[in-house]
Amino acid sequence: MAGTARGRKSSGKATITDVAAVAGVSVAAVSKVINGKGGISEPTRQRVLAAADKLQWSPSAAAVALRGARTRALGMVVGRGADLLTADPHFALLISGVESELAPLDYGLLLHIVGEEPEAEVRAYRRLAEERRVDGVILTESRIGDPRFDLVRRLRLPAVLVGRPWQEDPIPHVQAAGQDAGLREAIGHLVELGHRRIAYVSGPEDKVHTTFRRKVVESCLSEHGLRPSHVVVGEFTAQDATAAVGRMAEPADDRPTAILFGNDTMAVAGINAARRLGLDVPRDLSVIGYDDLPLGELVYPRLTTVNQDIEQLGRAAANELLGLLEESGAGPVAAPRPPRLVVRESTGPVPAS
Amino acid sequence: MAGTARGRKSSGKATITDVAAVAGVSVAAVSKVINGKGGISEPTRQRVLAAADKLQWSPSAAAVALRGARTRALGMVVGRGADLLTADPHFALLISGVESELAPLDYGLLLHIVGEEPEAEVRAYRRLAEERRVDGVILTESRIGDPRFDLVRRLRLPAVLVGRPWQEDPIPHVQAAGQDAGLREAIGHLVELGHRRIAYVSGPEDKVHTTFRRKVVESCLSEHGLRPSHVVVGEFTAQDATAAVGRMAEPADDRPTAILFGNDTMAVAGINAARRLGLDVPRDLSVIGYDDLPLGELVYPRLTTVNQDIEQLGRAAANELLGLLEESGAGPVAAPRPPRLVVRESTGPVPAS
Repeated sequence: MAGTARGRKSSGKATITDVAAVAGVSVAAVSKVINGKGGISEPTRQRVLAAADKLQWSPSAAAVALRGARTRALGMVVGRGADLLTADPHFALLISGVESELAPLDYGLLLHIVGEEPEAEVRAYRRLAEERRVDGVILTESRIGDPRFDLVRRLRLPAVLVGRPWQEDPIPHVQAAGQDAGLREAIGHLVELGHRRIAYVSGPEDKVHTTFRRKVVESCLSEHGLRPSHVVVGEFTAQDATAAVGRMAEPADDRPTAILFGNDTMAVAGINAARRLGLDVPRDLSVIGYDDLPLGELVYPRLTTVNQDIEQLGRAAANELLGLLEESGAGPVAAPRPPRLVVRESTGPVPAS
Repeated sequence: MAGTARGRKSSGKATITDVAAVAGVSVAAVSKVINGKGGISEPTRQRVLAAADKLQWSPSAAAVALRGARTRALGMVVGRGADLLTADPHFALLISGVESELAPLDYGLLLHIVGEEPEAEVRAYRRLAEERRVDGVILTESRIGDPRFDLVRRLRLPAVLVGRPWQEDPIPHVQAAGQDAGLREAIGHLVELGHRRIAYVSGPEDKVHTTFRRKVVESCLSEHGLRPSHVVVGEFTAQDATAAVGRMAEPADDRPTAILFGNDTMAVAGINAARRLGLDVPRDLSVIGYDDLPLGELVYPRLTTVNQDIEQLGRAAANELLGLLEESGAGPVAAPRPPRLVVRESTGPVPAS
């Protein structure tokens, strides 16, 4: 990775063979210790380090240790609040997928949840790169004007993006084909059930996927000769979903008969809010979520939602990155399935008006 | 940490001052590069490493790099499946707490989800220690006969346990006071509502906390002159909760009027299962969960549950570990609150029989 040449020293100084001899171990064992490869017991490691100290070997070992060794860790820096994993279980699923790919190879995932201050994000990537804390990073949630792709290139940090870059960019990324398929099916399903007043509750529009999905919703509705009855932009939170349902419920003759929510947490909170307003789901109001989190099968009524193959996406991203790192242990991984509608119990025929 | 002495070399070889001069940087900058401290630009780092190579400096730098430098990462090795974070949101909350303590100090969390094979767990700790991948580790879920306390001591890996050790052990651990308080309140609440047939659905009994909680339940009931109407041991999963409710529902005259579940996921799944059997919650059956996950406020009826101050527990564990590491940046952290009952909508008066 660095430009300086290395090789057998000719200055008559101690060599790796001398260190191995003094430590009473093989040359390979010394190499393993210096490269932090593991599989070496602590006493052996201490013997090797003591021998290296004693012989004042090796001039370039620090550089090797700092530059060359595999860390067997991938990094993920997330510019959200520390409550990320609970506030948005999407990430928990994604990390599950990443971990399921890493665990058999004894890789770990170094997670930095840095909050929404951009400087903290840059600092985290910089440290991961400069201190060689990880072999590469997985990026999530491409943003409009995202500075991270240039940053990781400058830092020479191997990286794979989950999702689509905000503009044409050579960064490797993984994404399921047919990104619009699930929403198309969702709207087709509602139209077939007779719904005409269909609302959309979106997430924050600085994310690439939120604006994309909103456009898909609008264009699908328009293909059916419809427009959204309401569009509400929220923060992907239960509170925003509850507020949105409250606002849309009155006046009753303008109320939507179906609501698409940008994620499952909002959808479940929306069902709850509707029921507290005396609206039964799906009798009076149909609700569709997005993501297909485990939550959706626990609740009553079970949630109709758009399944994203999130775990597989995490797995594919990790696999792609391990491939970039030429890690031979990682076998091929199936491509994530396109998003698709999962019909459960929270959608039904349009109410007679 | 290692035993060999270091100091100014007297062999006439290059010194750190020579390296700094050749690289055109300060001695402090060279030291930062070698110790992986960050705050150094990539070009500067490369210049320093090239100068160190050129001067064949410094014999002990590799040892320093391998032994001495702070990684600014804490480790967590979890012996569960890769779907941990989604299958048991308890962990997501705990990690939120840990991250909220680490983020301001620019620390990361290295997560190894290693599955249930004990060898993989040992291997992960060994690698973290031997390769100095983390400054210390947070242990969770003390098990009966837990081998990890001896392991981390042997590896000289600073460690803090979340929860109680399975037997007397000098390992530092953090736990809220009054561990039995929440369950006591839960049972008091049910008894006050007139319930006498109270069932308990527990998690796997190889964990210290599951056996502890079951004993608390049994002893509290006995103080009220009662015994559990049913005890079911499950795996903390929705499926097990559904099956448990199915088994307990018949015969109707032996059915419990209230069920305590070992976690919220089981409780929400249990409510769902009861409703599918035609039992209204709380009219026909009262349900109490454990943990107080965000989920409990989303569902209908809102879940009565035992709040554990899990995020604060994660925060306190991280803080304790940073203290062991003499990391000065970490301020004092409030002690986690004792578990306490949060009464919402899933409990009500015993049904007239």
